[in-house]
Amino acid sequence: MCRVYMPEPLPSTGVPLRTDGRLPGQLRPLRFQNHIAPYATGSTLVEWGNTRVICGVTVEESVPRWMKEQNVIGGWITAEYSMLPYSTLQRKQRDISKGKIDGRSQEIQRLIGRAMRAAIDLEKIGSRTIWVDCDVLQADGGTRTAAITGAYVALSLAVRKLMSEGKLKESPMLHAVAAVSVGVVNRQPLLDLCYVEDAAAAVDLNLVMNSVGEFIELQGTGEEATFSETELAALLALGKAGVKELLAAQQAALA
Amino acid sequence: MCRVYMPEPLPSTGVPLRTDGRLPGQLRPLRFQNHIAPYATGSTLVEWGNTRVICGVTVEESVPRWMKEQNVIGGWITAEYSMLPYSTLQRKQRDISKGKIDGRSQEIQRLIGRAMRAAIDLEKIGSRTIWVDCDVLQADGGTRTAAITGAYVALSLAVRKLMSEGKLKESPMLHAVAAVSVGVVNRQPLLDLCYVEDAAAAVDLNLVMNSVGEFIELQGTGEEATFSETELAALLALGKAGVKELLAAQQAALA
Amino acid sequence: MCRVYMPEPLPSTGVPLRTDGRLPGQLRPLRFQNHIAPYATGSTLVEWGNTRVICGVTVEESVPRWMKEQNVIGGWITAEYSMLPYSTLQRKQRDISKGKIDGRSQEIQRLIGRAMRAAIDLEKIGSRTIWVDCDVLQADGGTRTAAITGAYVALSLAVRKLMSEGKLKESPMLHAVAAVSVGVVNRQPLLDLCYVEDAAAAVDLNLVMNSVGEFIELQGTGEEATFSETELAALLALGKAGVKELLAAQQAALA
Amino acid sequence: MCRVYMPEPLPSTGVPLRTDGRLPGQLRPLRFQNHIAPYATGSTLVEWGNTRVICGVTVEESVPRWMKEQNVIGGWITAEYSMLPYSTLQRKQRDISKGKIDGRSQEIQRLIGRAMRAAIDLEKIGSRTIWVDCDVLQADGGTRTAAITGAYVALSLAVRKLMSEGKLKESPMLHAVAAVSVGVVNRQPLLDLCYVEDAAAAVDLNLVMNSVGEFIELQGTGEEATFSETELAALLALGKAGVKELLAAQQAALA
Amino acid sequence: MCRVYMPEPLPSTGVPLRTDGRLPGQLRPLRFQNHIAPYATGSTLVEWGNTRVICGVTVEESVPRWMKEQNVIGGWITAEYSMLPYSTLQRKQRDISKGKIDGRSQEIQRLIGRAMRAAIDLEKIGSRTIWVDCDVLQADGGTRTAAITGAYVALSLAVRKLMSEGKLKESPMLHAVAAVSVGVVNRQPLLDLCYVEDAAAAVDLNLVMNSVGEFIELQGTGEEATFSETELAALLALGKAGVKELLAAQQAALA
Amino acid sequence: MCRVYMPEPLPSTGVPLRTDGRLPGQLRPLRFQNHIAPYATGSTLVEWGNTRVICGVTVEESVPRWMKEQNVIGGWITAEYSMLPYSTLQRKQRDISKGKIDGRSQEIQRLIGRAMRAAIDLEKIGSRTIWVDCDVLQADGGTRTAAITGAYVALSLAVRKLMSEGKLKESPMLHAVAAVSVGVVNRQPLLDLCYVEDAAAAVDLNLVMNSVGEFIELQGTGEEATFSETELAALLALGKAGVKELLAAQQAALA
Repeated sequence: MCRVYMPEPLPSTGVPLRTDGRLPGQLRPLRFQNHIAPYATGSTLVEWGNTRVICGVTVEESVPRWMKEQNVIGGWITAEYSMLPYSTLQRKQRDISKGKIDGRSQEIQRLIGRAMRAAIDLEKIGSRTIWVDCDVLQADGGTRTAAITGAYVALSLAVRKLMSEGKLKESPMLHAVAAVSVGVVNRQPLLDLCYVEDAAAAVDLNLVMNSVGEFIELQGTGEEATFSETELAALLALGKAGVKELLAAQQAALA
Repeated sequence: MCRVYMPEPLPSTGVPLRTDGRLPGQLRPLRFQNHIAPYATGSTLVEWGNTRVICGVTVEESVPRWMKEQNVIGGWITAEYSMLPYSTLQRKQRDISKGKIDGRSQEIQRLIGRAMRAAIDLEKIGSRTIWVDCDVLQADGGTRTAAITGAYVALSLAVRKLMSEGKLKESPMLHAVAAVSVGVVNRQPLLDLCYVEDAAAAVDLNLVMNSVGEFIELQGTGEEATFSETELAALLALGKAGVKELLAAQQAALA
Repeated sequence: MCRVYMPEPLPSTGVPLRTDGRLPGQLRPLRFQNHIAPYATGSTLVEWGNTRVICGVTVEESVPRWMKEQNVIGGWITAEYSMLPYSTLQRKQRDISKGKIDGRSQEIQRLIGRAMRAAIDLEKIGSRTIWVDCDVLQADGGTRTAAITGAYVALSLAVRKLMSEGKLKESPMLHAVAAVSVGVVNRQPLLDLCYVEDAAAAVDLNLVMNSVGEFIELQGTGEEATFSETELAALLALGKAGVKELLAAQQAALA
Repeated sequence: MCRVYMPEPLPSTGVPLRTDGRLPGQLRPLRFQNHIAPYATGSTLVEWGNTRVICGVTVEESVPRWMKEQNVIGGWITAEYSMLPYSTLQRKQRDISKGKIDGRSQEIQRLIGRAMRAAIDLEKIGSRTIWVDCDVLQADGGTRTAAITGAYVALSLAVRKLMSEGKLKESPMLHAVAAVSVGVVNRQPLLDLCYVEDAAAAVDLNLVMNSVGEFIELQGTGEEATFSETELAALLALGKAGVKELLAAQQAALA
Repeated sequence: MCRVYMPEPLPSTGVPLRTDGRLPGQLRPLRFQNHIAPYATGSTLVEWGNTRVICGVTVEESVPRWMKEQNVIGGWITAEYSMLPYSTLQRKQRDISKGKIDGRSQEIQRLIGRAMRAAIDLEKIGSRTIWVDCDVLQADGGTRTAAITGAYVALSLAVRKLMSEGKLKESPMLHAVAAVSVGVVNRQPLLDLCYVEDAAAAVDLNLVMNSVGEFIELQGTGEEATFSETELAALLALGKAGVKELLAAQQAALA
Repeated sequence: MCRVYMPEPLPSTGVPLRTDGRLPGQLRPLRFQNHIAPYATGSTLVEWGNTRVICGVTVEESVPRWMKEQNVIGGWITAEYSMLPYSTLQRKQRDISKGKIDGRSQEIQRLIGRAMRAAIDLEKIGSRTIWVDCDVLQADGGTRTAAITGAYVALSLAVRKLMSEGKLKESPMLHAVAAVSVGVVNRQPLLDLCYVEDAAAAVDLNLVMNSVGEFIELQGTGEEATFSETELAALLALGKAGVKELLAAQQAALA
């Protein structure tokens, strides 16, 4: 886990170091462990700093009822997100024990779903539903961006498998998709917040972008505070640079 | 209801008119009918084009358990959002009949809650929970922005009542808060999308801002597509202008 | 809101006045605001004293499964009743937050459904389900009778619309239907109880009648007490007179 | 089970006999088998024609939260009603399998609760909750009236036990309570409808009365039809006579 | 109810008697009251010592969806188990009030289902679902074994009825099935534990066997303790002898 | 995944090999990857053939309400078991999507809980609740035995951590606990069934034992068939040998 953030200027450069020694625009180390769940069509375990998310992609040979009723051509991608009970320092109760799905989880899984649908040509996947499940194994900030970044890898692996099995003739993949968080802590814009930074952030912005530099989603919140246009511009710049690195890491994991 | 969007250039100006005759940067007519629910501490019915939302604010003289357990000073604001069954052309089933809260509704009510918490100094409201309930009576696009814009009015009315009753000595209100949607339809940035425009939009951005020009929330989605930085800049400009008008309308309604 | 009931004999007549100045057999003022929810097929806002109920009627082009399975000719009418959270002086939690529908609400919505099914020839509405939704905006006693009385107006408006659209060739409407409460407070029979009277009543009787003077429903309860046949007779007389006035008000609203 | 109703005039009297040979004002045979559930504080199995209901009364040494919060003196009685899956010719799914309590069951259990609370002086039962559970073993019409009539017997047995154990010094019992249904079938008023009569009835009225001839509840419904004042009077007369017989049967069972 | 277990050696035999005077290998008295729920296809009330369970069997003329989808020939048997609220000395809340099925009940109903499916040739019952419902009326230990032993009787009665109605040409019944519990209390193996013995037992073993001496289910638990192979052998011997007596009692009840 | 079981006698030994080449009494390869979820107090990933289960142990500094109410000394251990959606070849829907916990999962988590409570002296863990969560990552038969065998390792790691932190002075661990399945396939007793063997098994027996050779749980089912005492004896012998190997593997993983 990240320790408490105490920014101190470095004597030589004047740039404050972060709690884990990173520079403001530096990502945490990122690693993909593919095929973590071999019965999934595609799966990976993303380890991003101390955040770990299992992404598993499975395929159902039918489409949701609304697609049938409306005669929509092609398939659908839907996502589910959940935190395993032992992913946080204080045990997180399962949704089923509370009898309802966590509001934050719902919000995140809807975001993952939209991001993945932007990565793929839904008409080309045939009359199928692709399920993208993201389960957090360890939560140290940035679980939604890790989920999206990992989900893209698992989705790519699943598509490869469908193609090798002859179920897809042509790749439905569009541009690659990755996500990162940026935030303002102690008036300084930072890339890729860990949990303690996130808790201390006055602004928190999640960016989902693709490999041609376009936005897919942009979610900025003042966390019960506010932010200016200048701050927004600085955050977008940091985030764009971060996404580029992530996209490269994904490509390496898929090579 | 708004009819299908068929932009045609005006002979004189070259600017295409929208389905309801508005210019690209023009808001739909906005009206507040305060005290629609007299037993609420504050309430208003926002009519914004064909979208109608009832906003009711009630006050509970206690705080959520987590605040007590963590000894947090002050109070809390929480929001609930729901669509009445007859608010859409096709009846919308109640959440209780489906046995679970709608995912989209949860996302929206969390957004309303964050927006209202940015409008008020929570320490100054005392050991109370303020409930902000938004029920959609007619849905023609922009229900979440109408809910936020109306909720601010209802909240202001409720605070006034608490002050007149001596329950609050000092106003906890910070800056006024309003929200608007902007989007790109047929490659043209438009302010305040009605339902048919929203359904046709390639980009949809919701802006929550305050009266000193700061952002509270920024939620942009490519709706399974993408958008560029240039489009983002154009949308932010349109949105900021729209929010200014909304803030003025709120002040008039509260005068 | 009605103040506490302190019946004092009028010097001239000896008849005690009620808390809001009404005579024992006098209704509270009644007003219908039609088309409150324009996307509904028919809608009205009933304001009856301080009680306000939104009645929205929507139409679904199919029938419940049990009708299909049993090959029943015609359509169905079903009702739902709910209290908006800000309709009471102390906020009323939504059913979905408690995870189950309120027992009292269920009882009332079943009553509304039966009343509306008695107002219409179900065989003549075709293979459709008519949904009657009643949402209480302000609750000051008599919400179920207001819901029924308003639901009849909304239903009539909806039928008119279906006829004007050519979906119905012939009117399915039978006799008009209205409902009122009567009760015994301080040993005196009273028409149309407001909340404080209802809370103080030893007997509470709800009458649903039609425009040819027949009963549709009769629900009398001693509220954990009892009542005699004599009291029953007096209450029925008061109630019948009240329903007549209500039926006239409905006709005016539909003119 | 009752067979299909085919009223034929008796040669001598001109009075049509009912499907099971009863006269219009005749009750079905009634039998109580007390102590059917020996771990209950009081219990009985009511067999009323082909309708069988288990009534079990248990006692909890605390009161509902709302009573504590409002400092109400005395205790509370609450009822639950349920149909066992094998009580009907076609299996009835359990509430827990559907995930929600049946609307009709809720309505009935609220009625049983009110009836029992009218039978007892709640202040005299001490700070206790008395649970009255009614489970239908066989359903041939009149389950709610059988439940109430049996619940009174089980409640009396429970009170006796509490007194014998010294938990109650003084009997809290007020007047005895019983319930019966009356209805109009083929234009003839009938007492105590069995299932096929109930299904064919144009009017259905449930009467809950006490041993001094007062009404506790009166629930009449036209079952999607209507009824006149004359019919109401005839039904009330039949019902009152029936309740008298039921009260006598209860006393015999408690002797 | 069984009183507290105080084993004392009999002067003459040295064998300790049990709380209710039984010898270690002695069953409690067993009695079947068939047709307790006449609308069921088959039913019985098992009274086994102070434990009473209603077993009702009903038949649905269709099979579960998974059987249709997998084109499985024949029918299915499924069981549900529930404790009536007044079956225990302290009232047991209904599942529907808690909103979820009790874990222990689920475990038991799955066990009953497997046991009944071993008693019958599923291919021979045709395209039907047989529902076996077991509701505990009084719980004094051994409710699951009483449920299984009674369910077999109710199932046999139901099959007889289906055959007499010509719905089954050939009996699908295989060998008879019964169940008993055995346990170690104060280091002594005992047959057929009542509640206080069960609560004091260091080992608890439930045996489901058929009439040719084969095992269908064997569930032994150290109840947070452990047991040796020697103890296991002694318990199996006691249990086998007990099941033989139960099978004889079933035959008598079905004669 | 295991392929279809086709036993063929080896020319030299006459012993048929299993689908994956194992001998009848041979376990699948077993591996523990400790600390898979670093925020848990103890965790391990068990890989047992193609079955993979994440076991995470967390500690809550309070006890369940029933322990407080009954003044029970010491702490409690409770378990939850769930299958991740991508753990099976066909996606497994989450419990929360179905709105209720899977019956089989409940049965298994109750079993894990009892097994872990037999491994530890509950009085020595202080006033704490230990949560044992088992989430299946890949399901190829034996998930419940893998969960128990892994849970013991995770629990031991958690206890070590509590001792190193000084929260426990003395180890509460009793004997080590492991579990294995045995079954009869094609009339041959086999140790440690993989999924295809399990699906083909006529008998399935799960054994939970400790390191001094005692039974904790014994669950044998004929899977809608039956088994004899001779088969039982052969299965117990195979199982006991298997558990010994598992206990050794656990010790190695904890060394």
